Amino acid sequence: MDRLIEAIESKQNPSVVGLDPTPALVPAQVMGAYAVEAGEYVEDDDDNLAATGAAAAYFEFNRAIIDAVADIVPAVKPQIAMYEALGPAGIDCYTMTCQYARENGLYVIGDIKRGDIGSTAAAYAKHLTGFDGADVWHEDAVTVNPYLGSDGIEPFTAAAQEADRDLFILVRTSNPSSAQIQELELNGGTRVYEHVADLVEQWGADTIGRFGYSRTGAVVGATHPEEGAALRARMPHTFFLVPGYGAQGGTAQSVAGMFDRDGSGAIVNSSRGIIGAWRNDPRYSETLEPETALEIVADNAREAAKDMRDQLRVALA
Amino acid sequence: MDRLIEAIESKQNPSVVGLDPTPALVPAQVMGAYAVEAGEYVEDDDDNLAATGAAAAYFEFNRAIIDAVADIVPAVKPQIAMYEALGPAGIDCYTMTCQYARENGLYVIGDIKRGDIGSTAAAYAKHLTGFDGADVWHEDAVTVNPYLGSDGIEPFTAAAQEADRDLFILVRTSNPSSAQIQELELNGGTRVYEHVADLVEQWGADTIGRFGYSRTGAVVGATHPEEGAALRARMPHTFFLVPGYGAQGGTAQSVAGMFDRDGSGAIVNSSRGIIGAWRNDPRYSETLEPETALEIVADNAREAAKDMRDQLRVALA
Repeated sequence: MDRLIEAIESKQNPSVVGLDPTPALVPAQVMGAYAVEAGEYVEDDDDNLAATGAAAAYFEFNRAIIDAVADIVPAVKPQIAMYEALGPAGIDCYTMTCQYARENGLYVIGDIKRGDIGSTAAAYAKHLTGFDGADVWHEDAVTVNPYLGSDGIEPFTAAAQEADRDLFILVRTSNPSSAQIQELELNGGTRVYEHVADLVEQWGADTIGRFGYSRTGAVVGATHPEEGAALRARMPHTFFLVPGYGAQGGTAQSVAGMFDRDGSGAIVNSSRGIIGAWRNDPRYSETLEPETALEIVADNAREAAKDMRDQLRVALA
Repeated sequence: MDRLIEAIESKQNPSVVGLDPTPALVPAQVMGAYAVEAGEYVEDDDDNLAATGAAAAYFEFNRAIIDAVADIVPAVKPQIAMYEALGPAGIDCYTMTCQYARENGLYVIGDIKRGDIGSTAAAYAKHLTGFDGADVWHEDAVTVNPYLGSDGIEPFTAAAQEADRDLFILVRTSNPSSAQIQELELNGGTRVYEHVADLVEQWGADTIGRFGYSRTGAVVGATHPEEGAALRARMPHTFFLVPGYGAQGGTAQSVAGMFDRDGSGAIVNSSRGIIGAWRNDPRYSETLEPETALEIVADNAREAAKDMRDQLRVALA
């Protein structure tokens, strides 16, 4: 986790921008422009032209945002589901986005939430180590689901160690129904997510870096402030990735308890609050040129990223 | 689940072939042949040539197996992790494999084990509904992880209903460490996987088809025969996808209890036992031409698929 922590310190900003485009979050004229262009230059099955055009639009949208925030935030977190929704063309856009973000000095958290039995997890862990010496995904860390237990986790921890990368395991997610499984009370009074927290702390024990945190982080939703603060104490060597800020209801105050006494120990994600901030800008209209619309997207993303940074600085001061 | 059950009845065979290629499971001369060819015809970043070649080899391997088993088995289950290991080129191979299997009349279970919060799960559910009218993934069902609770599941159940497709939710996986979370005992004595089983039965209640099974199936590992039989009774409207047969230790006898009285209610997966059966054939040598090696792969896969079918028929008689 050292590279991420260094990046956070150098920007003095423990926040990450979620690059989660959807057709509603990308200005209509940008979606439209690339849809037409796709029809002109892409050889593809006719059926997939819409997806290919959307993927091109997503990439231009992401590029505008990355350019606008690269000097403010240490990291981005593309959510691969948004790209998978477009099929293979979306996957190309995902890896291009990861690569472009890295080229701009950003640490890339691939929000892929994979999880499977040992031999299969070893294949997923190629996200971190690449194939035959080539980095085919361009991620610095990935998110992982714990439901299959340690043999689904170990290939990721080994890959992280081998390739100087990190992982974040789901402990307490930000959504309302996470309670249905994660909050269940075990014999003896421990909750399922607390038990998972203990496993995560243990899975990371061999890879503690020079800031005191292991390569095996935890996902802890911003929507559970008290539980987050308790987990902070329970998992002293585990760095937190905190989703659910902004659109999902989390605030700088609600995440403050997930940081350690030095103001380290966590990175907070906002997606819609930053990449969708342009939707409240009165300068935007559907009649603007695509380039102008992307400038408005970029301006608003930059201001929203600065606001989030400043709110976190105040809450952690 | 009606389409799958019809396919099983028409082939009189409740088994599915796992299409999980790895460099070790594909004959060396096939890997080599397509690696060279990739260098000749693919425009790509040099770094990714190895992955592009491997993806081409995987597709030829899969095609040989699909051709060999299409009249014997009702379904195939490609494990997307094996393709993701190659990056975007692997994803292209995955969707081409799904499409080819369907063109050959097979029901395709995409083993993707996705799971996320509601809005993100809705993006993943495009695996079932496609993007803008185009079927970009070519799957008939997907596997889903339950750790995030119902709001991560509902988009999949809605998509399945909309597109006449199905899903299988992880309940009890086949790997040794699945016990670390799935077997935990809750207050009152229920185990976590039993609680998940009850949720799955409930999530499927609105989509029960004409054979009595809902669109929301369950993944129950062949390596837990007693628990599997108990789950069969506990989840009367839930169809089972049973991995872990063959290489992982499951037998026809150990899965028999996961079927209902009519010999329906489950489909059993074997991957390595079928696609890797060629490795025990004395006719194989590394000096054979790639085409000859693929013929040996195909012959052995066909025989192994027939053996599995016949063993299941005996065990269920």
